[in-house]
Amino acid sequence: MKERDLIAAIQARVSAAANPSLLCGIGDDCAVTRKNDTDVLLYSIDTLVESVHFDPHFHPPELLGKKAVSVNISDIAAMGGEPRFLLFSLGLPIDFDEQWVLKLSDGVAEACNHYGCTLIGGDTVASPGGVTMSLCVIGEMATEQVLYRHGARAGDSIYVSGPLGRAAAGLELLKHDMGGRDRFADLYQAHLDPRARVGLAKRLAASGIVHAMMDLSDGLATDLAHLCNKSALGAVVYQDKLPDDPLLEQAAELLGRESLPWKISGGEDYELLFTVSPHATKKLQELVAKTGDLLYPVGTMTTGKGVTLIRDDPSLQQREIPVAFLGFDHFSKG
Amino acid sequence: MKERDLIAAIQARVSAAANPSLLCGIGDDCAVTRKNDTDVLLYSIDTLVESVHFDPHFHPPELLGKKAVSVNISDIAAMGGEPRFLLFSLGLPIDFDEQWVLKLSDGVAEACNHYGCTLIGGDTVASPGGVTMSLCVIGEMATEQVLYRHGARAGDSIYVSGPLGRAAAGLELLKHDMGGRDRFADLYQAHLDPRARVGLAKRLAASGIVHAMMDLSDGLATDLAHLCNKSALGAVVYQDKLPDDPLLEQAAELLGRESLPWKISGGEDYELLFTVSPHATKKLQELVAKTGDLLYPVGTMTTGKGVTLIRDDPSLQQREIPVAFLGFDHFSKG
Repeated sequence: MKERDLIAAIQARVSAAANPSLLCGIGDDCAVTRKNDTDVLLYSIDTLVESVHFDPHFHPPELLGKKAVSVNISDIAAMGGEPRFLLFSLGLPIDFDEQWVLKLSDGVAEACNHYGCTLIGGDTVASPGGVTMSLCVIGEMATEQVLYRHGARAGDSIYVSGPLGRAAAGLELLKHDMGGRDRFADLYQAHLDPRARVGLAKRLAASGIVHAMMDLSDGLATDLAHLCNKSALGAVVYQDKLPDDPLLEQAAELLGRESLPWKISGGEDYELLFTVSPHATKKLQELVAKTGDLLYPVGTMTTGKGVTLIRDDPSLQQREIPVAFLGFDHFSKG
Repeated sequence: MKERDLIAAIQARVSAAANPSLLCGIGDDCAVTRKNDTDVLLYSIDTLVESVHFDPHFHPPELLGKKAVSVNISDIAAMGGEPRFLLFSLGLPIDFDEQWVLKLSDGVAEACNHYGCTLIGGDTVASPGGVTMSLCVIGEMATEQVLYRHGARAGDSIYVSGPLGRAAAGLELLKHDMGGRDRFADLYQAHLDPRARVGLAKRLAASGIVHAMMDLSDGLATDLAHLCNKSALGAVVYQDKLPDDPLLEQAAELLGRESLPWKISGGEDYELLFTVSPHATKKLQELVAKTGDLLYPVGTMTTGKGVTLIRDDPSLQQREIPVAFLGFDHFSKG
């Protein structure tokens, strides 16, 4: 049973009783509940587990604390919201290193300050299997501006808010102890110290031109498939429109790999993925002209099903590849 | 470094920036934030770890799912609030048993229905060290009715809302495989399937006569010490006023133990601990007369420091024992 099947089975068992103040339950980046006549509250919970989500051997505790907060707040950004409060539950082995924990806390504090988010609660528990961190983040925004995964329309342009695959490449460089700390600093940072795109997300939500949005946490192939499912549409993505990234190419060459799997299914990008009408291109450009944010149109929403990648080499036999929900390990070169 | 020292150190690092909508941050059963002019939102997060907080060998998954929800909602009850929403993050080993997880989910669903609480979000993660469950519960109540740990007054009577030590006794019977499933059913249930005292807590909060309240999760000795610290007072507890419990005595006899350590520092009672003026006794009795809830006055708030247990045997040399923060393992017979 895969995670999404399991979640569906759990969801079916706990299907929500009608609750007038619940606008969106399980199935989007955040749950959305009514706060008052104009505003909603956003909720998300996430757990990070040692050796699954992070490796303390190469993840400095300050950066790990920052990352734990950032990846949670990225779920608030995914809806276009403003992070407000954070709860933090920390599981520690019996023989935990006090200094390590305090540095981790410094990182949590730094990230909270950065995002203007207040830590309001938490607990510590014994965790014999290694460090675990569960965070629940609470955000807020205008009801009419909330951007859901559903809402995309056929013909919409699909945008991503930055380079793809850098965190996956950085992690692989770290795992293989490839060095190049200066040369590949941006790739290392993408894995060790990602930032949630709160500011851009808020501007996109306020613009009124975005039809559907989410954040990229599990890789474009998987996340876009979720957006397609929720919008009852399909999508095509063009390889030659994926953000060019010379640094990623250099890392791929060093590791003897292709860069495409990183871009398509690397995960942990924490960029925004959103769709707008092709007629809104100009407005979108104006929106980011002042801030310098770079937006990449990578594909188009279709009336089909699933996510299709169009390879850039016209001579390839299998030029169109279905990639929906493909994880990094399953990615086929085609 | 003990848990409460560690939490204090973490708290110092992330000390909240002034936030006008935050009424209470770290340090009570829930964080309290302003929802609107009349109401607040309550937040609590808790993590349960396999082999630390539960043993799947004798904890049926349905009951474990119920318990995970109940102990979290008990934090909402601790403030006098109404539980509304729940987020649930489930960590599973790679080789998890599907049926076990689905039964766990049934228990979560049943408890949500029981408390009128809606599951609005969650995730599943790989957890090589065993099953973990992190829950964040969101409650709501009238701002003026919130009952904090602070607020107790010297001379207040200290009440508990039910028998003490049953969960600890039940757990010990289970660990020693002592049988007596029928005879000790209430003790087993206290550990396996506790209930949060939401209804009583709401009535107490609405009554206006309670000065301070919390729930009993870590045992009377520890929890009352927290309430004392927050109220800048001390407390005395009288052994002969602790709830009589023939069943607990029978279990103690069977296991060759004293029942007193269970009552004082057993933990997981999930009863309410609260203080009222001694002049409010009659009102308190009227409050529970209709519902049949039993309230036990176990001691008195003092201008001193810490928590002192007065043993019932006047011939004991050391009749007054300081018990603040004493865990079950550290409890001295005196």
